[in-house]
Amino acid sequence: MSGWLAIAGLGPGDEALVTPEVRAALAEATDVVGYIPYVARVAERPGLTLHASDNRVEIDRSRHALDLAASGRKVVVVSSGDPGVFAMAAAVFEALEAGPSVWRALDIRVLPGVTAMLAAAAKVGAPLGHDFCAINLSDNLKPWALIEKRLRLAAEADFAMAFYNPRSKSRPEGFARTLTILQDACGDDRPVIFARAVSTPEESIRIVPLSQCTPEMADMRTMVLVGSSTTRIIARDGAPIVYTPRSVPA
Amino acid sequence: MSGWLAIAGLGPGDEALVTPEVRAALAEATDVVGYIPYVARVAERPGLTLHASDNRVEIDRSRHALDLAASGRKVVVVSSGDPGVFAMAAAVFEALEAGPSVWRALDIRVLPGVTAMLAAAAKVGAPLGHDFCAINLSDNLKPWALIEKRLRLAAEADFAMAFYNPRSKSRPEGFARTLTILQDACGDDRPVIFARAVSTPEESIRIVPLSQCTPEMADMRTMVLVGSSTTRIIARDGAPIVYTPRSVPA
Repeated sequence: MSGWLAIAGLGPGDEALVTPEVRAALAEATDVVGYIPYVARVAERPGLTLHASDNRVEIDRSRHALDLAASGRKVVVVSSGDPGVFAMAAAVFEALEAGPSVWRALDIRVLPGVTAMLAAAAKVGAPLGHDFCAINLSDNLKPWALIEKRLRLAAEADFAMAFYNPRSKSRPEGFARTLTILQDACGDDRPVIFARAVSTPEESIRIVPLSQCTPEMADMRTMVLVGSSTTRIIARDGAPIVYTPRSVPA
Repeated sequence: MSGWLAIAGLGPGDEALVTPEVRAALAEATDVVGYIPYVARVAERPGLTLHASDNRVEIDRSRHALDLAASGRKVVVVSSGDPGVFAMAAAVFEALEAGPSVWRALDIRVLPGVTAMLAAAAKVGAPLGHDFCAINLSDNLKPWALIEKRLRLAAEADFAMAFYNPRSKSRPEGFARTLTILQDACGDDRPVIFARAVSTPEESIRIVPLSQCTPEMADMRTMVLVGSSTTRIIARDGAPIVYTPRSVPA
């Protein structure tokens, strides 16, 4: 019996954004491992065991998944979005590197998905249509000083920016500091997009000038996108379109 | 008769990476508009007109698509990868903003997809598992000096980096300069991934230390990923795994 491990991205929430590749892996799996709300998106069926665990136990969850695969099970670790962007793939490889050498012989695949920043961008137009960066604003696993340094350099580079995990109950301060840094570092009043629960029934989208942004506009389900200096808004009767042109004049 | 326009991402090449949302739009469309190789990925059927055009005519193509939608057609503009990342969405909105005001009343949607950097990252592990940036290395639409500035700031910020359009026959020099800048700016010998034609039958993947990279390792079908200072390689009997851990020590 030959086990395998697939680390799969379920996309931002809408089932129409789950790739056929991920569907096929779930259909073959004997075990699905992941954070409670993501495992809840997988339909139960005979022969499939669902292993849901809480937040912040990513390494334990990874070791469990690797153990199951090593014992011959067909295991899918589920992430929302893309598993390689602030999600489970890095955690599984951290566990693998620190674990028994037999894990290195496992059949492991990463199955990409539609990550939250791309789904959020699509909802308003194309704010990431030119060079951009993606930053995880949580300082649980890195020093805040590094986040601050990256924010200042990203502003100087005039990247559009995508922020994952902007704010949570246990980290109420960081996003306020982020806004202060950007309001200071960006010499203009560029558009900021607050995209909450994108592609789910609770979706809400706000477009706010940087000068008018306040910390409570974001929570742990919000993706925040910040335009570059060239990002434009097209006014319409309906929702405006926000996009960053492909060209930057010399 | 009520037309619409969907700007859709076909993913990097493998049909198993096309989302059901995009499939549904293609199934409803009366017209598909895009660059020749991407339109070639759409199956012909009665009632569907395929409009394939050459490279570098993105604005003409966009105007054509907007005109068709305004005349009541159901139009899908196809991009590879995600349409919002160095692809057709920004071009369509540029054309829309400069065009007749009636275009602003159109029903326009952007349908996200799996962009090349995520598919490339998934093939080797999780090199974009921490903060990263995406830069289009083509200087067709922006000054080379801006690319160079962004490369130096991205290295200073210690972002992992994803490079789109690293090199083409008409731009043989830029990627050589990029390598020189990174070899100078990064004080270590981090892994670089050359992922060509990811998820197609011609796929090839190379992992090369930065110091040993040469310009001809990339061409116009190659996605280049550069690790950050914390990116690690896990040696195995098979292909190694490259990943960037979630943590950065204080």
